[in-house]
Amino acid sequence: MSFEITKELTKNPKTKPDSSNLVFGKHFTDHMFIMDYETGKGWHSPRIVPYQPILLDPAAKVFHYGQTIFEGLKAFRKADGTVVTFRPNKNFERLNRSNERLSIPAIDEKLALEALRELLLIDQDWVPSEEGTSLYIRPFVIATESALGVNPSEKYMFMIIMSPVGSYYAEGINPVKIFVESKYVRAVRGGVGNAKTAGNYAASLKAQEEAHEQGYSQVLWLDGVHLKYIEEVGSMNIFFRIDGKVVTPALNGSILDGITRNSIIQLLKHWGWTVEERQISIDELVEAQKSDKLEEIFGTGTAAVISPVGEISYAGEKFTIRDGSTGELSAKLYDTLTGIQRGALEDPFGWVVEIK
Amino acid sequence: MSFEITKELTKNPKTKPDSSNLVFGKHFTDHMFIMDYETGKGWHSPRIVPYQPILLDPAAKVFHYGQTIFEGLKAFRKADGTVVTFRPNKNFERLNRSNERLSIPAIDEKLALEALRELLLIDQDWVPSEEGTSLYIRPFVIATESALGVNPSEKYMFMIIMSPVGSYYAEGINPVKIFVESKYVRAVRGGVGNAKTAGNYAASLKAQEEAHEQGYSQVLWLDGVHLKYIEEVGSMNIFFRIDGKVVTPALNGSILDGITRNSIIQLLKHWGWTVEERQISIDELVEAQKSDKLEEIFGTGTAAVISPVGEISYAGEKFTIRDGSTGELSAKLYDTLTGIQRGALEDPFGWVVEIK
Ligand SMILES: Cc1ncc(COP(=O)(O)O)c(C=O)c1O
Ligand SMILES: Cc1ncc(COP(=O)(O)O)c(C=O)c1O
Repeated sequence: MSFEITKELTKNPKTKPDSSNLVFGKHFTDHMFIMDYETGKGWHSPRIVPYQPILLDPAAKVFHYGQTIFEGLKAFRKADGTVVTFRPNKNFERLNRSNERLSIPAIDEKLALEALRELLLIDQDWVPSEEGTSLYIRPFVIATESALGVNPSEKYMFMIIMSPVGSYYAEGINPVKIFVESKYVRAVRGGVGNAKTAGNYAASLKAQEEAHEQGYSQVLWLDGVHLKYIEEVGSMNIFFRIDGKVVTPALNGSILDGITRNSIIQLLKHWGWTVEERQISIDELVEAQKSDKLEEIFGTGTAAVISPVGEISYAGEKFTIRDGSTGELSAKLYDTLTGIQRGALEDPFGWVVEIK
Repeated sequence: MSFEITKELTKNPKTKPDSSNLVFGKHFTDHMFIMDYETGKGWHSPRIVPYQPILLDPAAKVFHYGQTIFEGLKAFRKADGTVVTFRPNKNFERLNRSNERLSIPAIDEKLALEALRELLLIDQDWVPSEEGTSLYIRPFVIATESALGVNPSEKYMFMIIMSPVGSYYAEGINPVKIFVESKYVRAVRGGVGNAKTAGNYAASLKAQEEAHEQGYSQVLWLDGVHLKYIEEVGSMNIFFRIDGKVVTPALNGSILDGITRNSIIQLLKHWGWTVEERQISIDELVEAQKSDKLEEIFGTGTAAVISPVGEISYAGEKFTIRDGSTGELSAKLYDTLTGIQRGALEDPFGWVVEIK
């Protein structure tokens, strides 16, 4: 490959934060990747520069019309010191699906992967090595044309920034409580629910705040049409182990096609589990719980990997799942996926990409 | 009132664009208003400064999670030279309703009005005087905390920028063609459709592009639940004159509470028209058209004031409304509202606020 990514290295490397005590998304590495787009010129000037603020006109379209998309993935340090990423090609494929939905011009996925590789090589010392830690990578695109008026921007910036993050589970993998939301709606078929775009997250803040006030850490969304079928959790897809099978909502256009979701489904099938991707109503779930067939619930996402659910609240009722303890399947999936990611376990699927 | 708004005036006033040929939202005045928010400190440091780019960390929440809201209103120059705004208090009330929905801290409406007044006084020479021209005013809030993670920002900026704009109708008021959208959805009850937030507009770009390709200038949205009830157009509310009455979709939570809509309803009632704010299905509309009872369709919004609709396309069928000509009620409403705004007609409702 030969993309001319220019590089300007920092003259003032930052002090790295204490990696035994990392807060999610607060510290950023020494460098970032930027590339610009302009109608007529296409994507151009790919470059790695010192991490720094960006200068934008107050009329930049991203501020007003939210034309922006993002991705999230992680790099890990293996025991032997090598740095790896997990299925990064999947993230850049999804980035382009989000771009398409948001009328943002496509980005060459090979160039994006190469940019990430070069950026990771430059900032490789930032990849922490403690158990559970990683380097969170955030590629994103923003519309930068300074013009009011609702139409696709003529200018964009694509950037990659990176942040060392601690273990999601400071004290071991712990079940969370989730609140089934039946007032607010995150997305509906025909909308942008399956794109990783800013507006979906803005739309979720209020519900999340109200759930927090009631002691729930996450919201479980129901579909926008019937307020009946289960969609996903804040930034995780959701799985149910019911009567010996695993059920997860199908990719219906309003939920995100999670890369962890996809990996978990492959792993489960590999192990011989029956996995059903289909509509599942909240009533079916309540029914399964009442008849003692609901064996486990867990969320899946890049940040938490696997997040067991210990309690759900729906329509004023509380349901404790397996007495609030972590299910054996959740634990096994967590151990296996993190084991593959960190090179402790074999990688039968070719998911792990070494950065060299 | 005494809010200490500090002022730093530009040393390099810009050349004003030719006001007979203004493009919407491309030119900005010499100054802008800014105020910052930080948890613990509240909104602080209100100031008027030269119009200039802003510096933001790439991890600023607005880029990733779209926590942002905006407003749009206009200032006009009356024949006697005075500068007026139209119902600005309504815009700042709505701004705070949007803030509330997006978990953004409320802004003192009196301070916002005072900031606008002072900014307009400083940049008053930018208010054009030609028929149909005005100064478009864009107040907006963006989340500026630099931290990844989906939760309300701890920092915000509130800004007001202003842009001289030309007549929406370069060649007189002209009916537009609209495309009834039955694939894409803009908003659904329980979502953020009634807030003026960036994500709603990002979600509309794809549908708008596809409508343009088919020769339609705007999309008419249907409700997200049934894809059946009429909601609104791109950035306008919509009205139908059917069999001697005026019908407009009720404020159901998924459409914007337009200030032009509100003013038009008041005007119509003042004139003795029956105005029904209710659910109206696309089938009812098609039925009215087929039985020759559909007398006029028009959109209402700050940018266009009144926009008559000459053709609608639904499910592959085209319906020409009154042979594509502007209805007499649309024309009368346009003349009256613009007349009140520019001081040519009496203002029985006290809508016009002189800036002095
Ligand atoms: C809305 C939403 N759903 C699900 C996920 C999980 O996706 P992934 O497994 O690719 O991280 C995320 C996080 O990226 C998300 O933001
Ligand atoms: C979605 C939407 N609907 C309707 C309107 C019309 O509202 P107003 O009359 O306050 O300009 C606008 C424009 O502000 C809008 O963005």
